[in-house]
Amino acid sequence: MKLWDKGISIDKKIEQFTVGNDREIDIHIAKYDVIASRAHAKMLQKIGIISVEELIDLLGGLKVLETQIENGTFVIDEQFEDVHSKIEFELTKSLGEVGKKIHTARSRNDQVLVALNLYYKDHLSIVKEKTQTLFDTLLSLADKYKDKVLPGYTHLQVAMPSSFGLWFSAYAELMIDDVYLLNAAIKTVDQNPLGSAAGYGSSFPIDRELTTKEMEFATLKYNVVAAQMGRGKNERTIAAALGGLSNTMARFAMDVCLYMSQNFGFISFPDELTTGSSIMPHKKNPDVFELIRGKCNKIQALQSEMILITNNLPSGYHRDFQLLKENIIAAFEEIKDILDIFNYSIQQIIVKDVDINSDLYKYLFTVDNINTLVVEGQSFREAYQKIGGQVQDGTYVPDTSKKHTHVGSIHNLCLDKIRDKFPE
Amino acid sequence: MKLWDKGISIDKKIEQFTVGNDREIDIHIAKYDVIASRAHAKMLQKIGIISVEELIDLLGGLKVLETQIENGTFVIDEQFEDVHSKIEFELTKSLGEVGKKIHTARSRNDQVLVALNLYYKDHLSIVKEKTQTLFDTLLSLADKYKDKVLPGYTHLQVAMPSSFGLWFSAYAELMIDDVYLLNAAIKTVDQNPLGSAAGYGSSFPIDRELTTKEMEFATLKYNVVAAQMGRGKNERTIAAALGGLSNTMARFAMDVCLYMSQNFGFISFPDELTTGSSIMPHKKNPDVFELIRGKCNKIQALQSEMILITNNLPSGYHRDFQLLKENIIAAFEEIKDILDIFNYSIQQIIVKDVDINSDLYKYLFTVDNINTLVVEGQSFREAYQKIGGQVQDGTYVPDTSKKHTHVGSIHNLCLDKIRDKFPE
Amino acid sequence: MKLWDKGISIDKKIEQFTVGNDREIDIHIAKYDVIASRAHAKMLQKIGIISVEELIDLLGGLKVLETQIENGTFVIDEQFEDVHSKIEFELTKSLGEVGKKIHTARSRNDQVLVALNLYYKDHLSIVKEKTQTLFDTLLSLADKYKDKVLPGYTHLQVAMPSSFGLWFSAYAELMIDDVYLLNAAIKTVDQNPLGSAAGYGSSFPIDRELTTKEMEFATLKYNVVAAQMGRGKNERTIAAALGGLSNTMARFAMDVCLYMSQNFGFISFPDELTTGSSIMPHKKNPDVFELIRGKCNKIQALQSEMILITNNLPSGYHRDFQLLKENIIAAFEEIKDILDIFNYSIQQIIVKDVDINSDLYKYLFTVDNINTLVVEGQSFREAYQKIGGQVQDGTYVPDTSKKHTHVGSIHNLCLDKIRDKFPE
Amino acid sequence: MKLWDKGISIDKKIEQFTVGNDREIDIHIAKYDVIASRAHAKMLQKIGIISVEELIDLLGGLKVLETQIENGTFVIDEQFEDVHSKIEFELTKSLGEVGKKIHTARSRNDQVLVALNLYYKDHLSIVKEKTQTLFDTLLSLADKYKDKVLPGYTHLQVAMPSSFGLWFSAYAELMIDDVYLLNAAIKTVDQNPLGSAAGYGSSFPIDRELTTKEMEFATLKYNVVAAQMGRGKNERTIAAALGGLSNTMARFAMDVCLYMSQNFGFISFPDELTTGSSIMPHKKNPDVFELIRGKCNKIQALQSEMILITNNLPSGYHRDFQLLKENIIAAFEEIKDILDIFNYSIQQIIVKDVDINSDLYKYLFTVDNINTLVVEGQSFREAYQKIGGQVQDGTYVPDTSKKHTHVGSIHNLCLDKIRDKFPE
Repeated sequence: MKLWDKGISIDKKIEQFTVGNDREIDIHIAKYDVIASRAHAKMLQKIGIISVEELIDLLGGLKVLETQIENGTFVIDEQFEDVHSKIEFELTKSLGEVGKKIHTARSRNDQVLVALNLYYKDHLSIVKEKTQTLFDTLLSLADKYKDKVLPGYTHLQVAMPSSFGLWFSAYAELMIDDVYLLNAAIKTVDQNPLGSAAGYGSSFPIDRELTTKEMEFATLKYNVVAAQMGRGKNERTIAAALGGLSNTMARFAMDVCLYMSQNFGFISFPDELTTGSSIMPHKKNPDVFELIRGKCNKIQALQSEMILITNNLPSGYHRDFQLLKENIIAAFEEIKDILDIFNYSIQQIIVKDVDINSDLYKYLFTVDNINTLVVEGQSFREAYQKIGGQVQDGTYVPDTSKKHTHVGSIHNLCLDKIRDKFPE
Repeated sequence: MKLWDKGISIDKKIEQFTVGNDREIDIHIAKYDVIASRAHAKMLQKIGIISVEELIDLLGGLKVLETQIENGTFVIDEQFEDVHSKIEFELTKSLGEVGKKIHTARSRNDQVLVALNLYYKDHLSIVKEKTQTLFDTLLSLADKYKDKVLPGYTHLQVAMPSSFGLWFSAYAELMIDDVYLLNAAIKTVDQNPLGSAAGYGSSFPIDRELTTKEMEFATLKYNVVAAQMGRGKNERTIAAALGGLSNTMARFAMDVCLYMSQNFGFISFPDELTTGSSIMPHKKNPDVFELIRGKCNKIQALQSEMILITNNLPSGYHRDFQLLKENIIAAFEEIKDILDIFNYSIQQIIVKDVDINSDLYKYLFTVDNINTLVVEGQSFREAYQKIGGQVQDGTYVPDTSKKHTHVGSIHNLCLDKIRDKFPE
Repeated sequence: MKLWDKGISIDKKIEQFTVGNDREIDIHIAKYDVIASRAHAKMLQKIGIISVEELIDLLGGLKVLETQIENGTFVIDEQFEDVHSKIEFELTKSLGEVGKKIHTARSRNDQVLVALNLYYKDHLSIVKEKTQTLFDTLLSLADKYKDKVLPGYTHLQVAMPSSFGLWFSAYAELMIDDVYLLNAAIKTVDQNPLGSAAGYGSSFPIDRELTTKEMEFATLKYNVVAAQMGRGKNERTIAAALGGLSNTMARFAMDVCLYMSQNFGFISFPDELTTGSSIMPHKKNPDVFELIRGKCNKIQALQSEMILITNNLPSGYHRDFQLLKENIIAAFEEIKDILDIFNYSIQQIIVKDVDINSDLYKYLFTVDNINTLVVEGQSFREAYQKIGGQVQDGTYVPDTSKKHTHVGSIHNLCLDKIRDKFPE
Repeated sequence: MKLWDKGISIDKKIEQFTVGNDREIDIHIAKYDVIASRAHAKMLQKIGIISVEELIDLLGGLKVLETQIENGTFVIDEQFEDVHSKIEFELTKSLGEVGKKIHTARSRNDQVLVALNLYYKDHLSIVKEKTQTLFDTLLSLADKYKDKVLPGYTHLQVAMPSSFGLWFSAYAELMIDDVYLLNAAIKTVDQNPLGSAAGYGSSFPIDRELTTKEMEFATLKYNVVAAQMGRGKNERTIAAALGGLSNTMARFAMDVCLYMSQNFGFISFPDELTTGSSIMPHKKNPDVFELIRGKCNKIQALQSEMILITNNLPSGYHRDFQLLKENIIAAFEEIKDILDIFNYSIQQIIVKDVDINSDLYKYLFTVDNINTLVVEGQSFREAYQKIGGQVQDGTYVPDTSKKHTHVGSIHNLCLDKIRDKFPE
């Protein structure tokens, strides 16, 4: 066999190419393969494929592996191409022939599918929880800083008065929309695909309702072809959901970076959360928020990858699907960190006093001036022209006394109502 | 003023550049601007900004416009930059000064936002309904053709027996996942943004709960900054939802095109649904399904556009948002057609008899042969090797007698259970 | 035939679905179909398929159509599905049977391909020219404002001194990279696909080298299958190239919008190039640049669409390809406008005097202070700590006297060298 | 300091978050940092910042590191955040104070930029070379199998005769277009950014032309702001170029997978290049080509990520840019493997004899039949109808005798001309 550059044989190179980095990725789903294998074993016993004794052996063997996984001592060695073959090998090594029986009436395809669905379901819930934590933090900050004025911009131009209360709670309320998508993703993966085998089911009289209950799935993906086609579609939906949340956080991080610029100077952070420069001794850079923004943007890009891998492929399993899991799992691990770091960091924010009386911001109040005149009986057009004239000839004096009373406005933030909207 | 090529003045060219094709696009949202204006007018009367008489006038004027819109006689002439200025002009022309009063306490920003939200909400519901129609069609076809055998493929290789029943109902069940996303999108847009004005609310004592009720929104987007930031986020979510559904239809269309190929020959369509070639007299091309596939892929690409337009922009309105509506509205109009055409065309399908006994397909049954041996007491490994040996030495005889009994399998399609899963 | 909603028959609806808006789009390629038809006719005469007289007739007929196209009087009526059938119809109407002969030895597929390639080649050159015009404008502005100081930012934090000269010429030099991509796209489409027929060539003894010369293509796409597969690949490359240029302009527009913000206040524009607000009389918004940014971002999204439509499709023509042309042609028409508007608008820029001595900007010079100490013999570390200490205790005095001398720096812009780099 | 879950301190967690996996990624650019540091050191000596002795020391220290890198013994330990700090540390450890001097007049920003540009340039050349190797392989295969018939499809319908010669060489010729993009990318990165420091140049009298020559860059990115803005733009262009090549390979792989399906049965591969199934003993799956397809699709998705990370960010460095390198470097490493594996595997292809006389394929020749009648004097329309009638009534007899003579057609592949087109 011809050798390749660097002395790797072609067989080795093709093996590496096909295995990819499944071993590292699969560590994340090992726990879930054990859960699914346990349910499958119980079902096999129920329908008479294995005996009660065999079941007890298998459950024992799986327990041992589960403990290793929890302790971080479980390793997928070079000789195994993925976590699934590793687990089967270990069961067979310790239990003998019965270790192999666990693969009866399932295929590698539905084994991967169900482990991924369990991983996704679990991690979507974690992401949702962490989102709620951040949501609560933002509402607390909104309450704490509800009286702190912030200039509001449109077109990046000074526009109308805003407040830190409005700003913090705006991002909180947007996260509710993100949770709608997370919930849709949860529903999508909360369907048991086990039993679809290679995508066309099994001639064994398997009991899919039993495994559904065992694994606590809300329902089954009944149709076995549909179950198989979940590969790619599930990941697409998850990427949309994680991307939505990332979108909110990325835009928030953009605001943070902008407001920290000396030209805005609305906020700051303690030194631990900023970095200096190797050549500029005065620098205090918002690297944490820039990285949040960048990492969130990366996650937003994920959906394109998920779609491109599966697009226009006819129904039925294709090996390409193996490539879906790497970056989606990486995105879950990343977004959990982002949410933690965001939640920690934003609490350290130093909100500065904005000198709303400076010349820079005096026009923030023109609409309030106009509205005062309107309420006093002038038509909007007259009032607009009058105030516009004052702006023009330099006689304009801001009316900073107006209170906004309507729900959701600067002086009526409705934080409780927003809190109540957070979806289950 | 310097002239440009083709004799267009710079002013004109800049005006064209900024207006874009808003006039054509806005026809689609005219109806919804009327609905929102009506609610806003009622609210203005309630809080004392306009009188009862003025309200009656405005409602009358809006009714006239609504009728024109319904009749298709409403036109946005060159002199107006969008539907909103056109409507205000018409009201003022027919009613005098009160026509202008309707713009009190709102801004172009929240006016566009609310009209779009109403359009989106309405059209998402239409899309959902049409999806349900297609879903029902597919389940009927699954039932009708449940006994028609279809080879199942993995890796595009002949794998295991499938059926037209499985195939049709697989796509039906996948559409349930698509509806989860549609429902998330509906929830996202079913929040009233009116009253957010330019994104920072109003100093008028507007009653946002009243307009919410009038327009039948499920809730408010309370925070006015959050309401404004819905621009882009809403479109992103909608694009994800329409894209999910498109993904299902595109993959189905791929199957259709493949199965119509002479090399598969599983299905056909009447001549009205196929096209010939200008140079090949024998051709019968599946153009309708190729265009469904292509148009669905276009819709899948939409999300990238929605994200790129708004990505990394700080909070607050930016004119870039104007560009979001064109392709999202086009996608709605397109996907309604796709769903209609798909639903009509798939009913015309001619399902052929696949000669499952041909040499091409005999290995479909190897797993069934193996499972028979396993049930008879052999270990899976022994059975696998035995049947593998038969395949090798040409003595293999397919066991086509096996019935698959588990839920969701070829002989137990669970169509009713799938039907019951369709979400409200 | 069953009627659809709105009284449209199914045939009509399917016809609309398959034709799409080809009629409107094809107006843009009418001119190029005439050019290609003329070359094809000459070739047919050369190889003896038509007579000299027939050729003269065809050339006359094509001339008439060409004039109509130039005058804007050429219309593709409802009865034709595209420009190609319209042109053949017109030739046959005016010339009789010979009008049909022009379709000998070609197929609709290569007819579309060659017309698109000619359109693309022509428009890529126009885009390149307009890019060079903008490039020249930016270099002129760089020269004009080379002494105007601008704070330089990293992480959006005040960092080091920059200048308007550096800023303008930076974007000019980046456009050189964009032209590398445009040139790659030009090379890609500058290959004659005519003669590939339906993608597998023709049994007529056509002379493809002759048509190549006639249409002034640099070379042929020899392989007929490769020629056909250019559909999608060409559009992908073009989208990458237009996207690259759009990326540069979008980021420039972002700077413009930011620098116009009162918080930066570095630049302004005359009133004709800004817009006001319907409710805020003081507003001067950079809508033109926001729309440039947004439209450029839309163009950047185009590549995803081009890829998704063709991805994973096996070789050979698919009707999906019809959908590629709409948005790529729209992008060409849009980017030509963007380049014109950008070039016009940027020349109107009002560069303000930045008070570099304000407290906001004093730390711009810390690195220069440090470097002075280093040149005087201190180690960088010592110098860094000394200046850092001064910043800390408030004794820091900026050293604004330093001149940067190296090529490409603030005081040595190398505009001529940049100009010379612009690729042919 | 508050502890996080899993006992990681917040400082540690934030450090991990900001460093990311730079250490692993940076191994790939270590070699290039040494090259750039060597050039920078020589320049510093030339302009008098360091002495000849110091230069000799630095070059010696760099040589030691270079050897470690080549031998694979160079490791970036936990205490360093990236390769650049590691190298500076090692130089200082072994050489003392002079080790620190190498950072004079450069910044981390331009240090990263130049190392990446060198990496990109080198790897683009490698990719181009490997592309040429595959190109040559395909042309050889085209020549070898030029007489092997292959049905040509349009719309996935049997259309006209093709050949393996046409098929192989089609993909070869398409790769020429991919090289146009690779060359554009090479030109883009073949510009020296060193000396741009933090993006605004240096007040030291550095000699950028000297470093340009030392590192063998074709030219400089003169403008220091433009040099900095290359971050993101370079990666975008590279992603477009790698994506173009990936597109070609992915579509080729799709053909391979389809043609290996039993329903086509045109080709096969030896067992080493196919895989079996854990449950179906008859399976021979084209996993290698499916993974090529999937991995190529992943690379096609990369451009979205590159754009999203940098989109709409104002000029000047942002920490987000750190995130660009991970996946672009991964893509380079991946595509080198893909090209190797593709080139190796495609040579093992088993081309089968297609029974062109089977009923399935007889209509391949209808156009040839028509053309024969046309050459005999009938009009195309008459001939088309005559042959169409024969198809209809079952009397059609294929005319398989026709030779295609024009350049690029089935019997005149012009392989030499295609070979000559491969760009330098």
